[in-house]
Parts: sequence; structure tokens; C-alpha cells
Amino acid sequence: MIHFSKETIQHLPKIPRLNLINSCTGYKSANLIATKTFEGISNVAVFSSVTHLGSDPAMLGFILRPTTVPRNTYKNIKDIGYFTVNHIVESMIVGAHHTSARYEENISEFNHTDLEEEYYAGISVPFVKGSPVQIYCKYLNEYDIKENGTIHIIASIEQIIIKENIIQKENWLRLDLENVVAINGLDAYCVPKLVNRFDYARPYVPTKSIV
Amino acid sequence: MIHFSKETIQHLPKIPRLNLINSCTGYKSANLIATKTFEGISNVAVFSSVTHLGSDPAMLGFILRPTTVPRNTYKNIKDIGYFTVNHIVESMIVGAHHTSARYEENISEFNHTDLEEEYYAGISVPFVKGSPVQIYCKYLNEYDIKENGTIHIIASIEQIIIKENIIQKENWLRLDLENVVAINGLDAYCVPKLVNRFDYARPYVPTKSIV
Repeated sequence: MIHFSKETIQHLPKIPRLNLINSCTGYKSANLIATKTFEGISNVAVFSSVTHLGSDPAMLGFILRPTTVPRNTYKNIKDIGYFTVNHIVESMIVGAHHTSARYEENISEFNHTDLEEEYYAGISVPFVKGSPVQIYCKYLNEYDIKENGTIHIIASIEQIIIKENIIQKENWLRLDLENVVAINGLDAYCVPKLVNRFDYARPYVPTKSIV
Repeated sequence: MIHFSKETIQHLPKIPRLNLINSCTGYKSANLIATKTFEGISNVAVFSSVTHLGSDPAMLGFILRPTTVPRNTYKNIKDIGYFTVNHIVESMIVGAHHTSARYEENISEFNHTDLEEEYYAGISVPFVKGSPVQIYCKYLNEYDIKENGTIHIIASIEQIIIKENIIQKENWLRLDLENVVAINGLDAYCVPKLVNRFDYARPYVPTKSIV
């Protein structure tokens, strides 16, 4: 085992430090957040920090680093109040990664990738076509994390649109049936496969598989 | 595609709602958070919400639901000020899931699973033996998310202990070399495999693979 102390980490060059810290918390969700400007220009950007916050009411959150790319995403979310979260599948990873390029605000990443917009009745913001899980979200609040200047965005889940085949018993979504990816670090895309599911754990009772 | 409206989600029975919302944001990191009580009793609990917050200074965060199991984890973190985050690998998933059982505070989950404690010089809190990435963390702050009563815990990364073989060029940690798992929903454990890595994305320049 190799030990990296706090001091060692602080003194690493930027790229090795970014790689290390972005890989060290484990696999991350791989989502495209899609928005629209007031002027109607679409925007889409890859995020690896979307996390569910609770199911009643249904809410999710994600972390924004104000100094990095998705500033357009933030501005659009604040202007319009709504955005979508779309799972990335294996066939989308080149386009998904390319959305992290710093395009100007009046350029839609949909025009510079093979990602396609999809619209549903009554919703003005775009979804990403082919994504097996698409979530329509409403901005609720944000918390400034004063320790490093990041922002934790909080949103309610207004609608979830799901490809039928991944919906299993009691609404568990089996993501590997559609090759949903996970992110390892900053730039590595991985495809998970299901190994096992377990029953609700109870003290002193051996944990049982339910697959 | 199946549409679940906000109203439909609100009126779902508890388990289908939990499954749906816990699966709908994508794969999640799979970590064991280990702590110690004032009295010296170890505690370990599975978490799926650990997210890096920034690399300079190196910080991470995770979400606590005060009404669910890991209350002992929270109390210990507040009492002692330190905790560890340990990646779950495929061979640990039965024990890792069992840590979600509601054992009393004076019971160590290490005594009721095949998970083993590991200690390093100068650190009083336990790590999980066999975990290829072990992070020593210091509690910094917490943010109450008033929209649903959850707590966002913020911690600094004080030390990272890593199995040598997964450390790649420029400190990228290749997690699939040690079968680190990801979580799909509440109770499903998956093993990801690397598909591709991409170069830093630049506008108008095609995204290139770096694997």
C-alpha cells in the first residue's frame, strides 16, 4: 500500500492531484445535464456528482465548481428554473465527454457532438435522446460550500422517463440492461455488470441474496 | 418509455418509491465509512453518496439521512472528529451490505460480518482491511438541507492509502484492477470494467481516446 499524506497531495502538480482526488472516492454516476438559455439555445454538459437526496419528496443534488466548465449550465438553471438529467450509455461516451469542452454560451454542444435533443409535451428544456433514464428537475435551492467555494444545487424530481425494459419488480431500475456507464476519475468511462442484490439487512440475520 | 409524474411518484408505496428514486440518478460509489465511539467501539456502515468536492484542498462530502441507520456513524464523527472511507470490492459485498442492519450503538459491525479492521500508526479510527483505497478524513462542517432534513457532511482528506497496482500514470486510480464495486439503487452491487478514457476536451477538436 502507498500512503499519500495531506502534504504530499497538496504539493502534487495539478493533473496528478486532480486524477488522484477525482478517482479516490470510487465510481461516480455519469449524467448529462441539459438546459436552455433565455434565448432558446440548448446546452448539455457531463456531470459525475448527481446524487439522490431523498424519495419523499423525490429530490436530487449535484456539485458545481464555479471555476470550471458548466457555468452555462448554472446560469441556465437559475434563469429558467428547470433542467434535465440523462443517463449516459456506452454508445454516447465520446459525445458525453466532449461536452466538457469550454464552448461559448451561444454554442449548443448538441451541434458539436452526436448527442441529440428530445422534447416532451409541456416541457421546454431538452432531454438527451437515447438515454434510458431521463429526469425532469426543478431548481429548489443551493448551498454554498464555503470550505472550497463549490455550490450544492438541490432540485426536485418532477418527472422520470424510463425505458421500459429496465424497470424490474417494485420499480428497481436495472441499469446494466441498457449499458449505463459509471465514471472512474475525470475521464474514464466504465460499464458495470450486476453481481448480486441483497435483502433488507437485519441484525443477527445472515444477509441473503435476492437475485 | 414509461413516464412517472411527480404525483405518481408521491403516491407509490414506500419500497417501489425508494427503489425508483435510489436507482434513477445512476450508479453510485460504494464505500464503507468506519468510525469509533468515545468508548472505543468500532462502527462500519455502507454509504453510496460519497463524492469528491475538490482537490485543492482535497475534500469530500456525503449525505446522511438522520432517520436511517448510520446515526452511529454521525455521532462518532462528531465525537471523535475523524473517520475513514474505504472502497468496497467484490469479495466484500455480503459483509458490506450487512452493515446496513440496525445494530445497537455498542455493537461493532466488524464482529458480525467478515469485514476486518486495520490500523495505521498515529490514527485511532479503523480502516477496512483489503480495501484497495482507504481515505483518512477529518470532519470540517455540515450543511443542513432544509428541503428534506438530510445533512451534507464536509470533510478534508488527510491521507489516502492505495494498493500500488491500481496507481496509473499521473495518479489516475484504475479501480477495475481491484474489482471495486458500484451500487445500483439500494441493494444491488455491480462490478464495472473500463471501456475508454479520453483526452481533455477542447472546443471544435474531436475528442480522442487515451487508452
